[in-house]
Amino acid sequence: MAWEDVALKQKTRVSDAIPTEWRLKSLPSTDSVMDVPKESGILTPEELAITESFAADLVKDLAVGKLSSVAVTTAFCKRAALAHQLVNCLHDFLPDFALARAKYLDEYLATHKKPIGPLHGLPISLKDQCRIKGFETTMGYAGWIGKIDSENSVLVDLLDKAGAVFYVKTSVPQSLMVCETVNNVFGRTVNPRNKNWSCGGSSGGEGAIIGFRGGVIGGSIRVPAAFNAVYGIRPSHGRLPYAKLANSMEGQETIHSVCGPLAHSVGDLRLFMASVLEQQPWNFDSKVVPMPWRQAEEESIRVKISSGGLTVGFYSCDGNVTPHPPIQRAVQTVVDKLKGAGHTILSWEPYKHPFAVDLANRVYASDGGTDIYAALNLSGEPAIPNIKDLVNPNLKKLDLNEVWQCQLDKWNYQMEYLSAIRDFEAKTGRILDAIVAPITPTAAIRHNQFKYYGYATAINVLDFTSVVVPVTFADKNVDVGPKNFVPLTDMDAAVHEEYDPEVYHGAPAAVQIIGRRFTEERIMAIAEEVGRLLHS
Amino acid sequence: MAWEDVALKQKTRVSDAIPTEWRLKSLPSTDSVMDVPKESGILTPEELAITESFAADLVKDLAVGKLSSVAVTTAFCKRAALAHQLVNCLHDFLPDFALARAKYLDEYLATHKKPIGPLHGLPISLKDQCRIKGFETTMGYAGWIGKIDSENSVLVDLLDKAGAVFYVKTSVPQSLMVCETVNNVFGRTVNPRNKNWSCGGSSGGEGAIIGFRGGVIGGSIRVPAAFNAVYGIRPSHGRLPYAKLANSMEGQETIHSVCGPLAHSVGDLRLFMASVLEQQPWNFDSKVVPMPWRQAEEESIRVKISSGGLTVGFYSCDGNVTPHPPIQRAVQTVVDKLKGAGHTILSWEPYKHPFAVDLANRVYASDGGTDIYAALNLSGEPAIPNIKDLVNPNLKKLDLNEVWQCQLDKWNYQMEYLSAIRDFEAKTGRILDAIVAPITPTAAIRHNQFKYYGYATAINVLDFTSVVVPVTFADKNVDVGPKNFVPLTDMDAAVHEEYDPEVYHGAPAAVQIIGRRFTEERIMAIAEEVGRLLHS
Repeated sequence: MAWEDVALKQKTRVSDAIPTEWRLKSLPSTDSVMDVPKESGILTPEELAITESFAADLVKDLAVGKLSSVAVTTAFCKRAALAHQLVNCLHDFLPDFALARAKYLDEYLATHKKPIGPLHGLPISLKDQCRIKGFETTMGYAGWIGKIDSENSVLVDLLDKAGAVFYVKTSVPQSLMVCETVNNVFGRTVNPRNKNWSCGGSSGGEGAIIGFRGGVIGGSIRVPAAFNAVYGIRPSHGRLPYAKLANSMEGQETIHSVCGPLAHSVGDLRLFMASVLEQQPWNFDSKVVPMPWRQAEEESIRVKISSGGLTVGFYSCDGNVTPHPPIQRAVQTVVDKLKGAGHTILSWEPYKHPFAVDLANRVYASDGGTDIYAALNLSGEPAIPNIKDLVNPNLKKLDLNEVWQCQLDKWNYQMEYLSAIRDFEAKTGRILDAIVAPITPTAAIRHNQFKYYGYATAINVLDFTSVVVPVTFADKNVDVGPKNFVPLTDMDAAVHEEYDPEVYHGAPAAVQIIGRRFTEERIMAIAEEVGRLLHS
Repeated sequence: MAWEDVALKQKTRVSDAIPTEWRLKSLPSTDSVMDVPKESGILTPEELAITESFAADLVKDLAVGKLSSVAVTTAFCKRAALAHQLVNCLHDFLPDFALARAKYLDEYLATHKKPIGPLHGLPISLKDQCRIKGFETTMGYAGWIGKIDSENSVLVDLLDKAGAVFYVKTSVPQSLMVCETVNNVFGRTVNPRNKNWSCGGSSGGEGAIIGFRGGVIGGSIRVPAAFNAVYGIRPSHGRLPYAKLANSMEGQETIHSVCGPLAHSVGDLRLFMASVLEQQPWNFDSKVVPMPWRQAEEESIRVKISSGGLTVGFYSCDGNVTPHPPIQRAVQTVVDKLKGAGHTILSWEPYKHPFAVDLANRVYASDGGTDIYAALNLSGEPAIPNIKDLVNPNLKKLDLNEVWQCQLDKWNYQMEYLSAIRDFEAKTGRILDAIVAPITPTAAIRHNQFKYYGYATAINVLDFTSVVVPVTFADKNVDVGPKNFVPLTDMDAAVHEEYDPEVYHGAPAAVQIIGRRFTEERIMAIAEEVGRLLHS
């Protein structure tokens, strides 16, 4: 069968998994689809309320049987079905599997009078890298269709032990290596707030479904969080299990892929993190460091927060690309709020970020596209245009000693960064608690316009902890372009060119809050406080 | 200048650094040189006592001025000078530098009435991978002679902050990649207990000098610890800083090199570890995990120890090579002692160790010798025979995707091992606290006979924590060879062939005590208890 036929069959199979009664009679003509759940009549008022709750509240009610898992799962299945019809965010839809699990959990609670774990009965959406035994993980490659997974990814296993219910596998871009979500099998996933904007990537389906409240917590992470106005955390490598997830360029360990949750509150991110850590992931994934949830770390930051004693650095530009006005305003808003609460906010000089971005690009292209080609060649499908830099036939595979040199360069760069932090601390006489910065140079971007990943990749190279905080929305009346713009680089000129106050009006604008390696507890507490200040 | 001349000049420079009054009039004719310090008259009785103390006791006296750092440093400089004359264990000897530092520290204590740090005034020997600003790190390569280091390695920096005194740089094998210590510049380092035996490697100079008590704590690790009847710990990667140490194959991150202390007691290992961790190495070396010394981990094991509640696995053979009788007896001795104290000791099936050993050999040879050739070619010196497998012109460099496959294989192997541990725990209903095993298949080996590294390398692949415990000495009257020996492999036959009860009589025999990643506090406490049981 030609790959196009295989792909179409798969796409149809997933659409067909939506029961008739959850199907929309017609699609809205508006750019935003955010109001459809309320207007469609498919969800009951109670189901609307459930899907608009925080996970932390749902698990409390689920644990005591105040809500049944079947009710909660049904609500999210319905809303996910709407999401898929509206923004095309699913690679698989598993309502029967989910409801059977929910029923089992309800019975368990009735029998044992206690929840099975901290996530008892809670539906959790899984990015289509996560393997569930008995289902497919295609990552959007036509050539991977039909291969049934024989075991769970470690993360899936531990979430399962914690009591989660799995009901969807969400969309990713071909190869995972880009920040927009499009592949040959399922096409493009769009932003529920405006179909002309991207939902981000690689976890674009997660971003879209959580943003749309078709899910409450999902795996991974920053750009999708930013573009969908939700929170997300990139933990440092070795904090959460990545084992047995599907990936591109598997075995590439120079810049590690990580996974982390996205949700509507820091509390929900914490629920996810703490629930997984409680399962001792280090006994399952050898790369996970045996580091339980450290409440004392959180408390030590809370003391600083309550006394206005935080020291936070910030930067609005990384030296390569100037962010669009909505993003600059987002950073400034956070800075002002923190200052207003009495904290010490100081300018942070982003140390050699262009070097880090170049290094990351070199590493991501280091196999000359071999791995991605192998996946494409299984079916004969073409590469999506977005990854043309990675599957360029002129790319030369790096020699092993060149890779080792990259690895040394990375280590040295990381250490120079630590040295810059120590210098900052010595000069100011203060401990640097966090850094506030853009996570993308743009608000949720128009399709096919995502060109510069540097705000995210520099932090990947450093393996720093980073929490995305939704701050505001682009506003054509406020976010007017700068006059006399002088580009720093060609890339800067290209990104600047894309800004149009009219087109981006209403697009989510976020920041990231960055901390050293393994500072998840601290940075989450700071992100939570920033959220509180923004809404107070 | 020909490399031979450059090398000779360097060797002579180091010998000449020994003051005349510390030189031996004649070398002993015995195979063992262990009694020379007592008999030579060069050390005073007080100096003999100092050098035969534990570090933990010395730092107590140094911290209150009961001993001066100048006195302690002088004592160790003298004994190190003897060691070098007898076993050729130094790549550099720095008595003036050390005594100036000691004087400074004595003055500091007199002025401030408190020590500068937890290692105040204590001489610490450094393996010749550790960079000290202003001195050379040659690693025994002729081509690296004369290059003066412009900064300290991170470990050196932190030991310095903790108050240590540096006085020697100890010998290593060319390339570091073998377990005997020989290079073209300084020749061979021999075992102070018998010049016909190896001191081990790569930290052979460390093993010899600590074994001879020319030093009290040194860096790194297991085979030298085993061959010199001292304790040593291999922490997991990311616990202690390795940054800015010289190394072969720098940037190779598939199987990480680690460093750790060796000493005459677990208490001294703990002093080293805790002193370095107190300096927050994670703020200096980006690869170090922010994990302070965890007293609670140690305490939880002590509770089990005091109630006879440990569960310990053991194996005497890894499936590739049968250990010599002294090593089998060492393992059995530890098993019997632990059983005698009421602990639960169960057989552990070493999971696919031959696979791990093959994988390690593949990784260590992955660059086809490129890196080592580059170092050799600087001077034109030849490779030592011991590394002929690594610099074989027929070796093919691995392709990048092959290396990624190795990295995936390693990760999967590590996870299968964790799974085997979980199965063991499920079957026995007990938590596996540690595993006792050989660290080498032989007692301290005769020169040029070290063929099989698998007992150490399998644990490197797993990145498990491992503490070497000296157990006994080969005894020709007890350790008679097995009758009807049937070799498991060709390597097994070759290793078996080497055993001769007469030749190995008196050679140190050790075991390693192994724990999961980042279990340093626990495994050290168990090793300490094993030591106590052995001597009770």
